[in-house]
Amino acid sequence: MSTEKSAIIVGAGLVGSLWAVYLSKAGYKVTIYERRSDIRKAEISAGKSINLALSVRGWTALDAVGVGDKIRDLAIPMYGRMMHSTEGELSFQPYGQEDQAIYSISRGGVNARMMDIAEHEGNATIHYNHQCTGVDLEDGKIRLLNKETNETVYDQADVVFACDGAFSAVRYKGMQKLDRFDFSQDFIDDGYREILLPANEDGSYKLDKNALHIWPRGRFMLIALANEDGSFTCTLFMPFDGGENSFKSLNTKEKVDSFFKETFPDFYEMMPGIADAWEDHPLSSLAIMRSYPWHHGKVAMMGDAAHATVPFYGQGMNGGFEDCTVMWRLMQKHNEDWDKVFAEYSVERKPDGDALQDLSLYNYYVMRDYVADPMFLLRKKIEAKFSKLYPEKWLPLYSQVTFSNIRYSEAMASGKAQDKIMDEIMEIPNIEEVWDSQEIMDQLAEKL
Amino acid sequence: MSTEKSAIIVGAGLVGSLWAVYLSKAGYKVTIYERRSDIRKAEISAGKSINLALSVRGWTALDAVGVGDKIRDLAIPMYGRMMHSTEGELSFQPYGQEDQAIYSISRGGVNARMMDIAEHEGNATIHYNHQCTGVDLEDGKIRLLNKETNETVYDQADVVFACDGAFSAVRYKGMQKLDRFDFSQDFIDDGYREILLPANEDGSYKLDKNALHIWPRGRFMLIALANEDGSFTCTLFMPFDGGENSFKSLNTKEKVDSFFKETFPDFYEMMPGIADAWEDHPLSSLAIMRSYPWHHGKVAMMGDAAHATVPFYGQGMNGGFEDCTVMWRLMQKHNEDWDKVFAEYSVERKPDGDALQDLSLYNYYVMRDYVADPMFLLRKKIEAKFSKLYPEKWLPLYSQVTFSNIRYSEAMASGKAQDKIMDEIMEIPNIEEVWDSQEIMDQLAEKL
Repeated sequence: MSTEKSAIIVGAGLVGSLWAVYLSKAGYKVTIYERRSDIRKAEISAGKSINLALSVRGWTALDAVGVGDKIRDLAIPMYGRMMHSTEGELSFQPYGQEDQAIYSISRGGVNARMMDIAEHEGNATIHYNHQCTGVDLEDGKIRLLNKETNETVYDQADVVFACDGAFSAVRYKGMQKLDRFDFSQDFIDDGYREILLPANEDGSYKLDKNALHIWPRGRFMLIALANEDGSFTCTLFMPFDGGENSFKSLNTKEKVDSFFKETFPDFYEMMPGIADAWEDHPLSSLAIMRSYPWHHGKVAMMGDAAHATVPFYGQGMNGGFEDCTVMWRLMQKHNEDWDKVFAEYSVERKPDGDALQDLSLYNYYVMRDYVADPMFLLRKKIEAKFSKLYPEKWLPLYSQVTFSNIRYSEAMASGKAQDKIMDEIMEIPNIEEVWDSQEIMDQLAEKL
Repeated sequence: MSTEKSAIIVGAGLVGSLWAVYLSKAGYKVTIYERRSDIRKAEISAGKSINLALSVRGWTALDAVGVGDKIRDLAIPMYGRMMHSTEGELSFQPYGQEDQAIYSISRGGVNARMMDIAEHEGNATIHYNHQCTGVDLEDGKIRLLNKETNETVYDQADVVFACDGAFSAVRYKGMQKLDRFDFSQDFIDDGYREILLPANEDGSYKLDKNALHIWPRGRFMLIALANEDGSFTCTLFMPFDGGENSFKSLNTKEKVDSFFKETFPDFYEMMPGIADAWEDHPLSSLAIMRSYPWHHGKVAMMGDAAHATVPFYGQGMNGGFEDCTVMWRLMQKHNEDWDKVFAEYSVERKPDGDALQDLSLYNYYVMRDYVADPMFLLRKKIEAKFSKLYPEKWLPLYSQVTFSNIRYSEAMASGKAQDKIMDEIMEIPNIEEVWDSQEIMDQLAEKL
């Protein structure tokens, strides 16, 4: 009976929690329904300590509503990639200019903090253990199962936002039943298993905490990101099946042991008991999920619900946060005429979701393979030098994606154009020796 | 408590009904659950008289269990395409050699006949108004809602076959919830609307019944297939939206009337009241739906449930019937060890499902556009001539798909190779004049 503007958000994850703050700022009464229980009251098991990498798009969206600083103390800067060769040699590749970093942050930690923010800064009411079991897209009405009482409840609002992740119930129960709704879920051939590398006994880090560590091995890779407590969350990505180096063939303790010993010797030295920890963490799958349109009636999808991706560019969360930036801009532009806001949101943002997904897949090849290739690293060095000389003429693709708010689709297009030019530069005879010269810089400038 | 082998089929459509006959032949007690009511007892509305084209793969699957002759009397042979130009000129392009035809058949008619066959030849029990609401893939157990009594019932069998169409409930409720199940639904930009062109007053046909009539207009087309009663089922395929010639812009009686008058003048002459009939039939959408794998546990998907396609190659039903041929062969090969049968079925048949879908999309361009191009028709004439001279060396793609049981994936690959050769032949100067010579045939033979 109230005339107050109301919004429902399905999912108290990262995007839902942040979006609550934006809506609250615009005067909406926000109610969030979350399928799981309150993670702030639950023990976060080590096995679920997925790490995320916050970068510029994420900070932009957080800072726009003044909550960035509430996250900063959880974040550990990583200034570049540290590659570990089979011989245990280390090589460092900076991500951007000296002061540029991406920020390691634990999913559990940041999600708990974002829920605090949703409640305090967003004045949102969060109902936990409420599973969405149906949705009326036209009327903005949702049906929920209270999993504690087993009761079915209904709620309705002026607008509804599905921020309920890759396996979105709103998408499954609502959007996917629409005529002419495009949808795909494509699982990649590879899965992942997490391993916790504990801190030293004195609590110090076993590796440089200010780098993202990669053991690139061609068809598979191991990575490690620092946690606040001195530990590292390590993740092995490799094919489920097919050949010697697959999860299927690592089926005994002995095989796991000798695999790590031979393939990641410096890691094995830090964690000789790896084979015992192996089964602690489940083997998980990875998928790209595309949809279109991203709205219908009074409901719009944001974040993974609209464009779930593989984690290799560290852009899943950042892209979801950027959905808030875009939706907010369109809210202002159309003066909260939601039909217009949603229509433009779907059309404008879809190519960026697609590009984010394409880039994420591409970066898997970069991480697991190319970064072990001296010619690839040289290529990036040449780009970095040119970019430093002519920052207005050349921003490397990685920097566009990670250190700018340039649209993903534009970044991808300009990255392709840069690639063509760099292909030519790399064919210059003896490029390994002559690359650090003004002549090469001039040639690059000419080709632009 | 019986030791009889049992099978459940979800969906009493064309594929489910035929598959019942195969299973019965192997000694299975077959129970079919169908969401709709018995179409044999319902009035088939003219608006739903979709026509299908039966071709060799379909006949092969029907004849293998001796039921082809029960369908033959419903089928009207079409020996080629009859193109109608804007000026009302007719040109005929044969589909294959003189005696080769595809067969127009009404979906309602053939489905009713197939249900008779399932009951009589397949000894199947068909339960109508039973909607699948859940499935336990591992145990081969399904949950159903009896829509007449509103009761929930359960059934279980040794094996379960999901033959429940493009919007398969088994896929949605079961397969799609599996980890690592790939799925996509892509709606094309075009929709369709059906129009019934009635018989003459004396019951005779207004057009040659032994041809598939096409009014190719580049971005859209009208087609017509004969019914047994002297009428034609006509279908207009065009974009939903975008530009003058779209369903969105044909939004008044006047516009529909002048659109037909100008674009399909000879059709308009036969049916000047077209604008009045326009709204009788709903506007429908068209989608390609891909999945993988096609089985899990005790359940396999067949027909549209596994590989729904757009109708432009007339292969949806034929491909579904061919699934029966393949499943039957694998049943024999693996002596009804269903784990093995299903595993090989998914792996072997998936590339053919994909090819069927790719070919279907490709043939839309052929029908709506290329068949109006004299050079395309010439190209096909040259191929036909060469194929008649050297049938063992060259079977045109259309014939491979329509008049053979060659795997769809192989047909598509060999069609691409043929295309390359024909591209070269068509670049011979004055090919229009010299094509009907031994020299050209020799050149073609040489290129093989």
